[in-house]
Order: sequence, then structure tokens, then C-alpha cells
Amino acid sequence: MSHLESTTESGTHAPLFFTRHKALLEQAVHAIGQRGHWSAYTEIPSTRVYGETANDDGKAAYEAQLGKPFALQQAATIGLTGQETSPYGIKLGISYPKADLNQLIPAIKTASRAWRQAGPEVWAGVSLEILHRLNQRSFEIAYAVMHTTGQSFIMSFQAGSPHAQDRGLEAIAYAWQQMRAIPARTQWQKPQGKNPPLDMIKHYHIVPRGIGLVIGCCTFPTWNSYPGLFASLATGNAVIVKPHPGAILPLAITVAIAREVLEEAGFDANIVTLAAHEQSDNTALELATRPEISLIDFTGSSQNGNWLERNARQAHVFTEKAGVNQIIIDSTDDFKGMVRNIAFSLSLYSGQMCTTPQNIYIPKDGITTPEGQISFDQVAAALGQAIAKLTADPAKAVEVLGAIQNPGVLARIEMARQLGTSGNGEIVLDSTTLTHPLFPDACIRTPLLLKIRDSKAACLREEFFGPVSFCIATENTGDSIALAEKIVTEQGALTLSVYSCDNAVIAATEQAACDAGVALSINLTGGVFVNQSAAFSDFHGTGANPAANAALSDAAFVVNRFRVVQTRVHAPLIPQAQAAETMTPPSKPPVNGSI
Amino acid sequence: MSHLESTTESGTHAPLFFTRHKALLEQAVHAIGQRGHWSAYTEIPSTRVYGETANDDGKAAYEAQLGKPFALQQAATIGLTGQETSPYGIKLGISYPKADLNQLIPAIKTASRAWRQAGPEVWAGVSLEILHRLNQRSFEIAYAVMHTTGQSFIMSFQAGSPHAQDRGLEAIAYAWQQMRAIPARTQWQKPQGKNPPLDMIKHYHIVPRGIGLVIGCCTFPTWNSYPGLFASLATGNAVIVKPHPGAILPLAITVAIAREVLEEAGFDANIVTLAAHEQSDNTALELATRPEISLIDFTGSSQNGNWLERNARQAHVFTEKAGVNQIIIDSTDDFKGMVRNIAFSLSLYSGQMCTTPQNIYIPKDGITTPEGQISFDQVAAALGQAIAKLTADPAKAVEVLGAIQNPGVLARIEMARQLGTSGNGEIVLDSTTLTHPLFPDACIRTPLLLKIRDSKAACLREEFFGPVSFCIATENTGDSIALAEKIVTEQGALTLSVYSCDNAVIAATEQAACDAGVALSINLTGGVFVNQSAAFSDFHGTGANPAANAALSDAAFVVNRFRVVQTRVHAPLIPQAQAAETMTPPSKPPVNGSI
Repeated sequence: MSHLESTTESGTHAPLFFTRHKALLEQAVHAIGQRGHWSAYTEIPSTRVYGETANDDGKAAYEAQLGKPFALQQAATIGLTGQETSPYGIKLGISYPKADLNQLIPAIKTASRAWRQAGPEVWAGVSLEILHRLNQRSFEIAYAVMHTTGQSFIMSFQAGSPHAQDRGLEAIAYAWQQMRAIPARTQWQKPQGKNPPLDMIKHYHIVPRGIGLVIGCCTFPTWNSYPGLFASLATGNAVIVKPHPGAILPLAITVAIAREVLEEAGFDANIVTLAAHEQSDNTALELATRPEISLIDFTGSSQNGNWLERNARQAHVFTEKAGVNQIIIDSTDDFKGMVRNIAFSLSLYSGQMCTTPQNIYIPKDGITTPEGQISFDQVAAALGQAIAKLTADPAKAVEVLGAIQNPGVLARIEMARQLGTSGNGEIVLDSTTLTHPLFPDACIRTPLLLKIRDSKAACLREEFFGPVSFCIATENTGDSIALAEKIVTEQGALTLSVYSCDNAVIAATEQAACDAGVALSINLTGGVFVNQSAAFSDFHGTGANPAANAALSDAAFVVNRFRVVQTRVHAPLIPQAQAAETMTPPSKPPVNGSI
Repeated sequence: MSHLESTTESGTHAPLFFTRHKALLEQAVHAIGQRGHWSAYTEIPSTRVYGETANDDGKAAYEAQLGKPFALQQAATIGLTGQETSPYGIKLGISYPKADLNQLIPAIKTASRAWRQAGPEVWAGVSLEILHRLNQRSFEIAYAVMHTTGQSFIMSFQAGSPHAQDRGLEAIAYAWQQMRAIPARTQWQKPQGKNPPLDMIKHYHIVPRGIGLVIGCCTFPTWNSYPGLFASLATGNAVIVKPHPGAILPLAITVAIAREVLEEAGFDANIVTLAAHEQSDNTALELATRPEISLIDFTGSSQNGNWLERNARQAHVFTEKAGVNQIIIDSTDDFKGMVRNIAFSLSLYSGQMCTTPQNIYIPKDGITTPEGQISFDQVAAALGQAIAKLTADPAKAVEVLGAIQNPGVLARIEMARQLGTSGNGEIVLDSTTLTHPLFPDACIRTPLLLKIRDSKAACLREEFFGPVSFCIATENTGDSIALAEKIVTEQGALTLSVYSCDNAVIAATEQAACDAGVALSINLTGGVFVNQSAAFSDFHGTGANPAANAALSDAAFVVNRFRVVQTRVHAPLIPQAQAAETMTPPSKPPVNGSI
């Protein structure tokens, strides 16, 4: 009876893509139910996995794109845009198509008509094939990420390629799980005493919301964009990818791959488009409030994210914004491990992660350790020394620090340094400039660490995005926990960390984390860092505090990207041929997108 | 390691409630995966099911409440309120506690602290026990529904008690399914080559959002409120129930039962409270924008619903608003069955259902039937005659029509009658006044049916909530489908119906229904009516058109009522006793609320 069941008349490759990747999808769905360690894409840039020449090929592919228009033909192009400069000191000189939004959106609506009707298996199959090809081009994308974000190569590779791909797959797995929880068809037979039952056939159609807009950021253009991109695409929506003007290339490559797969599947490539624009124009604002935009995935500043939540009323808005991440130090049975772990967290990518800790609370009377009581000043000094040691050798340091993405970060370092001379704080370790052995024009800065003795200081309630952290003297650990909870509730946070040998302290911090709605890491002294979150295991953000209104990824991240439209008809009224098929219901009804 | 696992120190009955009802919950979870016919609560007011004296007892219990203060002691009471009048012509004379919101909300916050920590099994157990006791008091609640809404007794019983209870259970089942999809604990072991793996224990805590506000309506106070009430309560939130001033009693009984169960479970009863108020005051507005209100479930006018969506920005707002429901008549192989079915749909509860059809599109050249071509005028006349026949005998008619809930409905009948005399339309069947054999002061009106020859008439784009319908002449069925899609998209709708023997017409209507996002019923000629939706099978609303931003009930209705807060700690660091338990992970990790 249903005239809308998954069919793609023109899309000959679409079912093939689903068949090719369905085992992986099954594994991913299993993984989100377990949330133990699992990963689909190898994080080691190994020649054994990626091929002997993968690094050279990827680098060459990246370099071949420099200084010329990017190869992307899409609807409504009215010119070129693009001014990216590598934080490593190289002008990329790549230009991208600039779209007339008034032409682009109608083209997308036309393109998406067949896509909307294709159904969950086709949506998932195409999405998974895109991820597969992104994985094959992991090195090329890593160089693109490196030279737009300033991350070190290894971080660009891991976070920009396999980890981002894992996050994309995780979103597809949630979307798939939620879509297939809805039967595609059912038979409803209601007994009527001695009379024959009321007997109906019902179909439940998955209907996408419309056009999704993904607004990328300049520090993690792929990692933060893939969840929204794939969650919207895998639920049948079209997607406009609006990169940050400072980090277009990684998303341009992504969009080009998505379009290539869509075309091979028999669809109009304009289902996925790039909306590159100049830093100064209002493309983001204009797109975000268009009535055709039904879904928005945003990563960026609290100011912009809050604006979207307030003003893009026609859309369902998912935001990952800013916050003040915090560490509570009460006591430790491994002082060296703790200090080493925190120093690395503060230094990684020069603190340009939304998960990097900023406020470190230490009781003014110090902490207990196996080596005895260690004073507030000693803890702060030890952290400073550990950072200094980690960043002493420029050649090694740059592999941790990466480069400074933009002048705003430098300005915040300077602003924080003023605190150290204004009487509000005291510099424990000053930020210095390093020279990159390979990129002499790269902007490399070591972390700045300050002591703040007044736990009411205004600077603690403000995010200094970049390599700026504060050691803050509190009355005691209870005071630290209360302050941390208050700041999460008011300013938002993506991470909270606690060090303590006292189960009561850990329990109290756990309760505070639940009340304030922030993920908690306990006693990290080894090879796991608070600013890292693993796809399929760690939820990134909770959606329960001002730093983000959504988590990457969970059911809430996907279920509002589609709706269910039901049709019902009396069973005896359906034609005989179809009746034979439907009158004997299987023990389990078919689901939307069965595997 | 987790210090927050489901424990209720004081709640001795809470685990008992879960144990008592978990088999039912399992059945309900199975039912939402099938969406065939299933019901937990018997819809027939049978003495065999409900007891020999259930009707008399329920009626006596209802009558005992008349003319006195309702027995409900809750926090922050500063007076009494209540002016309900039965549409059957009786002043109820019941007064309810009036709350000082500035005192009520802090009392709720205090009450809900232990509730928030109790965990999914306790939340589900208490919610299921409340439903169980509501079911036991189905007759009493039916009389309360009848004498506030004007529904007939049988409809008050079915829609107000078992069907409403089923909708509540359905919401609990979705909530439970989504909560238990998240592991409570997992072990994350990441291989490190020749070194030991990184090994962490992670806990995932279900954290409720805060306080839910349920805003009831005057026509279906229980049916439309139970989904939101139980979805919020079963995910650990506190709930304030704000009834419509015209239909307080059914929800006051509901709140009293909820409080009784909460107290027996060892909780503070103020987890569920009633916010009764006068028609004229702004309690709804004031409550809806309080920062403490995190969830709002609203049923009512589009004006109020849209206001909430725009202004209650601190909350996640679920709305069921108004719309223009439509029927497309193209052709039929059972003209009599079609006419009888539509006439009943238009008459049931005097069209005071958000699902009642209003616009009936008929090609101006008529429709084909087994009896030959039937003209537009003949179709309209047949519908008028069928309604007249159905409502000819007042004693039988009142059992279908019920009574008019409020003067606004009468005003709309008069407004529509003007269309019949102003040249825009023509009255096919006028609305008349009937006398109820038992309640001489009841306000009973038969349906008004008009013909509109101009399919561009403004009245078609406006909801005339009540017994008002239009037969509209269209150019042809293609025109009917296009008009129906446009009106759903612009004005919203909860139901769409089509009659056709042509598969191409049905396919085109199905496509229009998917594009506009409205549920479609096809060729209803028997005992199923378009304005009825069955829990566990029919989704009520889609959330995809302006009539509602949510569906009752699906995953999207529940997943944003909680968040997940994660804690992680290195496995070797947990105490030995707990380590033994956690180091050997079960093949499936424990889930949040396992059964």
C-alpha cells in the first residue's frame, strides 16, 4: 500500500553502499549500546593501514590545492572567496565558490526531493560511503586541518580524520537506531467481541525536517562538524556546510567527497553544499534565520551560539559553545603523575580546545600527598615546572603545542598577563614565544600559568580560550567544589576534573557534577587526559549547562532531525496481491531500515 | 565507584512498585516497537473488570467532592480558587488550593532533590503505580471529566480514563526505553601496543532537567496531560500540573493520587503539585517563564502555544495546538459507509476535538461511486442528512454530541452561520439546540454544515473549533490535494483523510501528507474514525506542521527530559571490593534501569 517505501529509481549505487557498510553500521550500533572502547577508523597514521605512500600522497594532494580555486562546482555560484592563512605562516591562497543564497536554497530544495524519499537505508549507505572515502583521504585532510587550525600534524591526523570520522559514524549509528525503532508497517487488529476485529494496515514514514546548516569552527573544523553533518544527512535532510572563514579547506574537501558519493548514488550533488564566505559578511546570520533551514549545528563562541538559540526560532538548534573548565585538587596518591597529566592537558594544542582546563582550585593550606603536605604555592610551582619541562625543547614542544590559530588567542594571553602585574594575580609561568624548526613564521606560544588568591576574582568567571590557566587558592576542598558547581551552572563547562584520595570528596564532586550537568574525570594521572573524549564511549558535552545545549552524540542529538508521518487504511481494502503479503504479519514487524 | 546509583534510603515502597509493574512495562515497551493493537487498561466500563459497584462508587466519590474544598494539602497554599461549571448545567462548587508561586517553587526544589537521585527504576515504579491507582478510580475520574468537558459519559470514561492512562503508559515506555539504552557503567580498555591497555571505569548518570510544567486544556484534561506528566515524572523531574480553570477536577484527582503514591514511596509529595488558578490571572504565563521550569507540555490554542514556543526560552516546550483538519473526497466504493463515517466524525463530542475534520474537499463536478456519479451538492446533502439522522433522537444524540464546553464554541457556530447568509457560503444543515433528557440545563448543539463554493475563501484557513464543517467545491481532486497540503503547511493540522478508489490519488495524497507532515487516514468507512487515535499504535500529531511541535508519544517526546552526566576513573584506582565487581565486565553492560 505504501507508495513511499525506500526506492531510488536513479540511484543504482545507493543500495550497494548500504550493503558494503552495513556490517560496520551494526558494529557501531552495538558500540553505542556498550560505550566501551571501540573505533572504526585507525587513529595511527600507519603505512600498514593507510598504505605505503599515504602520507606522501596526502601531502601532495593538499599542496596541489594551494594557490588556486578549489575544484567544487555547485549551484548558485556567483564568485570566489577565501583568505585562509596557515598558523604555520603560509598563505594558502585557495579560493572557493561563493554562493548566492537566494539561488542556492531553491537549488537545494529541488535536489533534496528525491533524497527525502530515498529512506533510511539509502541515507545510511550514502553517509557511510562518504565516511569511508573521507577515511581514505585522511592524510590529505590532516594537512588541511594542520594548516588551518595550527594543530600539530599528529593531532590534525587523529582529531581531524579518524576521530572525526568516528564521531560522524557515532551520529549515524544513533540516527539509524532511532529510525529503525519505528516499525515501517504494522497490522492493527482490535477485537470487537463476536464481530470481526477492526483491522487496519498502518505505515510509518520517516520524514526529514528539511535543510540542515552546519556552522564549523576554526579549531576543529571536521571533528566538531561531522556529528551534525552526518546526523542530518543520515536522517534524509540536505546539508549546507558553512565553514569558519579561517578553516574552509578541510570542510571543502569533505563537501566535495559527499557530492561525489551522492552523484554516484544517482542523486543531485546539491544535497550537500558549501557556503564559504568572507570573515566580514553575514552569511551565517542570513542562512541561520532562513525559513528553509530546519536544523542548525553550531560550534563556536557563546555569544554567537546564544544568538542562534534565541533568534533562529524556525530551526532546531544544536550548540557547542564556550565555558570555563575546572580542576579540583584535594589530595593525590601520585603527585608527579597528577602534575604531569595536568601540564600536558594545559599545553595540548596551546589550550585551544573547548575541553582544556582553565581554573585549578587548590586549598590555600595545600594538599596531602604520599610525600606529605604540599603547599598551594608548591603545587602551582610544580605545575609551572612541568609545563616548562614539556615545552623546553622547541622541536618536541611544537608537537604538543601546535601553533596559535588566530590573533584573538594572543590578545587573551596578553590580557591574562596583565592580571599578573595588576595585583589580582601572580605569574607562575610566563608565556614565551618558540620558533618552529620547520616553519619559521609559525606563531608558537607556551602556556601562561597564574596564581589567583581571591576566589571571587572576575577573571575566573570568564573564558580565556587559549593557553591560559589559573591556580586558585580556596578556603578548602568544599569551597572548591561549591565554586566549581557555581561556575559550571553560570558559565558552562565541558569538563570537570577532581583529584582526591577521599571517597567522600569524590562523591561530593560527583554529586556537584550531576547537579551542574558536567562530565567528571577522576584522578587522571596516566595516559588519559581530561580534554580528550573518545567517540562511542565519552559523551562530548552534556547539554545540561550553558556550554552546550546538546551532547555529541546521543539519542537527543538525532531524534528531532526527522518526524514520523503515519498512514492507515482498512486491511480488507488493500489490493489482493499486497494483501497476501501483509495479512500474515511477521512475528516482528518490519522496521524502518531493517538490517 | 559510583555514589549515585539508584538508592532511595527512605523509599521502602518504591522498589516494590517497580517489581509490581515491571511485567506491564515490558509489555508496553514491546508494544511501542510493534505499534499494533495493544492496551493496558480496559476501555469498556465493565463490572467484570472494574467491579460490580465501580460505577456507583465512582459516581458517589465524584458527587462527594461537589460544593466543598478539594482534599489536597500542598506547600505554599495561600487561599482557594475554583469556579468550574458543568457543561451539563451544574455548578461544581469545588475549591482548590491556590499557591504562592514564589513559595511553591522552592518547596518543589527541596522535594525533588531525593527524587532526582532515585534513578530510573524508582521513577518508573512510582509512575506506574500512579497509573494503576488512576485506573482503579476510572469511574470517578470519568464523572469529573464529563462534568468539566461536556463529553458524554462513555467518552469521558474511555478518553478520560483508560485511553488517557494508556497514553501515560506509552510515554513511560518511551522514557524507559531511552534511559535504558544508556549503559549505567562500562569498562573502557584501549590497547596500547605492548603496554597494558588504558583501562577506565565509566558511569553514566541519568540527570533530570528540573521542573516540568503541564498545562492542561478544558476538553481533554487527562488525555492530553498524561503524556507530558508521565514523560517528565518517569525521567526524574518534578511536575507542576496547571489545569485549565474550566477543567480542574480531573487533574486535581490525578495530582492527589500522584502525591499519595509519592508519599508511600518515601518521597516528599511536593514532587507533583497542582497550580489551580482563576481564568483571569496570569499564572500560566508567570510559571512558564520561571527559570526553574525546564520542560513545558502545553495543549491549547495556537496563540498561547506559539507564545510559549517564542517566550519560554529557558524551557524545552512541547505543544499541541490548533489546526485545520481536512478530508479529500475523490471517489468511493462505499458511499453510504463513507457518509456515515464522516457524519459521525463531525458529530462526535460536537467537534470539540483537535482531530475533528473541518474542511471537506469535493470536486465541483462530483465524485464517482458504485451508484454512479454523485454531484457536489448531493455529497453535501448526504452528509447533512446523515448528521441529521444521527442527531434526530435527543436521547441518542447526546451520547454522541456531549455538551458544549464553553461559550467560545457557541460564538464560533454563530460566526460560521453568518457565512451561510453573507453569500460566501450556504447552510446545508443548520445547528439546532437539543434538550438533554437528564440534564435540562445542558448546552447541546447539533453540528453546522456549510457549502463553500470558493476554495480561496478565508474561512477555510481558520479553525472553527466546535461543530462547524465546510463542504468545499474544488476544481478537481488534484486541486483538493494541493489545497490540503498548503493549509496543513500554513495552518497546521492533526488529521487528514482521503477517500478514493484510485491508487494514484492515494499515492499523491500520501506524498502530500509526508511533505506537509500530517497523519493520513485512507478510506475510513467502518468503525474507525479519523478523529480517534489509539495509544501504542497511532502517533497523535507529527510535530512536523504548525498544529504541534511534538508527537504523542515518540522518542523525541522523552529524550530531552533528561541528560546524561558521565564520570570516569582509571580502573586500578577503584577500591578492591568494588574492583572485583567491576573488573569482570558482564557480556552486556548494566543499563540504566535494567529489567
